[in-house]
Amino acid sequence: MSGHGQALKRTPIAVKRTPTEELRLETIREPISEAFERFQDRLDEAFFCDVNLVGAVGAHLHRAFGKRFRPTLLLLTAQAFGKVTDEAELGAVVVELIHTATLIHDDSVDKSLLRRGLPTVNSAWNNDVAILMGDYLYSKAFSILVRNRMYGAMDLLAEATHRMSQGELRQIEQRNRIDLTEAEYMRVIEEKTACLMAAGCELGALVGGAGAEARRALQRFGHAVGLAFQITDDIFDYLGAETVMGKATSSDLEGGKITLPLINALRNAPERDRGEMVELIRNREFRNGHWSDVVRFVTQFGGVAYSQERSTELADRAESELRHVPDTDARESLRDALRYAVTRHR
Amino acid sequence: MSGHGQALKRTPIAVKRTPTEELRLETIREPISEAFERFQDRLDEAFFCDVNLVGAVGAHLHRAFGKRFRPTLLLLTAQAFGKVTDEAELGAVVVELIHTATLIHDDSVDKSLLRRGLPTVNSAWNNDVAILMGDYLYSKAFSILVRNRMYGAMDLLAEATHRMSQGELRQIEQRNRIDLTEAEYMRVIEEKTACLMAAGCELGALVGGAGAEARRALQRFGHAVGLAFQITDDIFDYLGAETVMGKATSSDLEGGKITLPLINALRNAPERDRGEMVELIRNREFRNGHWSDVVRFVTQFGGVAYSQERSTELADRAESELRHVPDTDARESLRDALRYAVTRHR
Repeated sequence: MSGHGQALKRTPIAVKRTPTEELRLETIREPISEAFERFQDRLDEAFFCDVNLVGAVGAHLHRAFGKRFRPTLLLLTAQAFGKVTDEAELGAVVVELIHTATLIHDDSVDKSLLRRGLPTVNSAWNNDVAILMGDYLYSKAFSILVRNRMYGAMDLLAEATHRMSQGELRQIEQRNRIDLTEAEYMRVIEEKTACLMAAGCELGALVGGAGAEARRALQRFGHAVGLAFQITDDIFDYLGAETVMGKATSSDLEGGKITLPLINALRNAPERDRGEMVELIRNREFRNGHWSDVVRFVTQFGGVAYSQERSTELADRAESELRHVPDTDARESLRDALRYAVTRHR
Repeated sequence: MSGHGQALKRTPIAVKRTPTEELRLETIREPISEAFERFQDRLDEAFFCDVNLVGAVGAHLHRAFGKRFRPTLLLLTAQAFGKVTDEAELGAVVVELIHTATLIHDDSVDKSLLRRGLPTVNSAWNNDVAILMGDYLYSKAFSILVRNRMYGAMDLLAEATHRMSQGELRQIEQRNRIDLTEAEYMRVIEEKTACLMAAGCELGALVGGAGAEARRALQRFGHAVGLAFQITDDIFDYLGAETVMGKATSSDLEGGKITLPLINALRNAPERDRGEMVELIRNREFRNGHWSDVVRFVTQFGGVAYSQERSTELADRAESELRHVPDTDARESLRDALRYAVTRHR
């Protein structure tokens, strides 16, 4: 088994399959397909409420959100150490509820109109409904945990939720900070994305019956997957002009979010190019036909390549933690989930 | 002791002292003054964060919020059954954080510009900061509970927070529903206001060492106080024209909130008067110089008097639960807090 692990480690994750051979989450979830069905049913139940608005927003979200990546990680982790128990399914529901609440509040803060091609809650209803539905889902999550006396999960998730909220505030404070450092960027994505995935994987290990060492390893696995996942997301913005027809601007830069590809390109570019780009961004000229200049700058000065390298490194680091997973099949599924995080196309 | 309780019950609470003899919360808090100081310090600590925005909003809230009624109830309850422990102080902090988070989100939903004479978070900053600071405070509250392993408190407060969020959504759904019934109104204020006071008093009893029966009694006490407190609040709007110079409109009705005084007056008024008032409200004429007509209608058809009666009844019901409090002085303090809830002038 350890020989197999060694062999796996030698092949860099991001290039192991050709891009056409895209991994589908449905395939990755095959080993936990029944548990995943039950998870979906339980998630739907979280929207049973005698306030009609809750059911209506729930039905909308049911169509608008789709990946269920965090619950997938959690259920696979639980499976890897034993089996998917009731607690694992509930933990997956709670993690997805917290994530969904964050998306709803985020979209309201960012004034986003669409998510996955469907109207956001703030645009389909309004900001008031977005604020209160987010609160409903956060509090539903914690209510599920106390009703099922899942205090270990509570320890992990209360802390993760609080760190996420700090990351969101930090991001607001750093809006339009064109001098943002890589360390500052990494801290925000750690708080915003990595800590919930870390807590989810640790929770999967916990309810799956893993020992303390393996729990910590899966926590680190989730953390690295989260970072790689978010960097991959942030790269998409700068691939836009090349891959998406008619894409005219960056949603991140538009919202004042300075992400790794840009940070790195600004660091590498010669003084004069950097100065011009800083000027262009400060004057928000990327909104007036100059978005392709930004994409060219970020690509030319290595921002995209560097971010892809960082993401691959993190994926490798995550993979190395999987040596703590006893079950070979489960380890393979978790590797696939990890590969999905860094190779998906949105 | 039971004789004393009987004697107290015979005097209706709301008329026991003359209106000029206004109760001050500072006086009510005298028996717990040191614990209250420590509570304030601990509350300030909740805003220690390396995101500068958190400290800035915290400093603003420190000036803008003031009553601390819920922590006062909790600390007095804890004192009543034993002494104010660390857990009681932390519980008071957590309850106040949850309440503050709700106020911040509420103000954002209601687009309120002022609270207690100072700008709201959404007006001093913006909606984004209001959404994320509310999330920060909610999650800080639960983080404090898990860090201090206060799982009994978690049981009570996770549930209360979830019910509050349902009440907020229900209120949105009932906006401008001029046919709202008293039962529907009561349900919303139960969720929005009473359940957190109930949980706070139950928590005070729990950490103060009360038995199961006394815990339940204090839960009922907090519940009735919360209802009376909210009805008192809702009466203020309809006293406005008489007591506040130049008050031109109702903030509740403006926001589509149909409250008990109006519900009751609409129920009592003859067909024709009711029809006219419904018309006036539907056309939002109360914004154009007709607010005094609404106040006259609500007063004339007994809406204010009825609401005051309901509030007094609830206060009496709350008081009767205090027979479970062993300490005479503490019982007196809790009675004063109860009287404050129904006799305060804002």
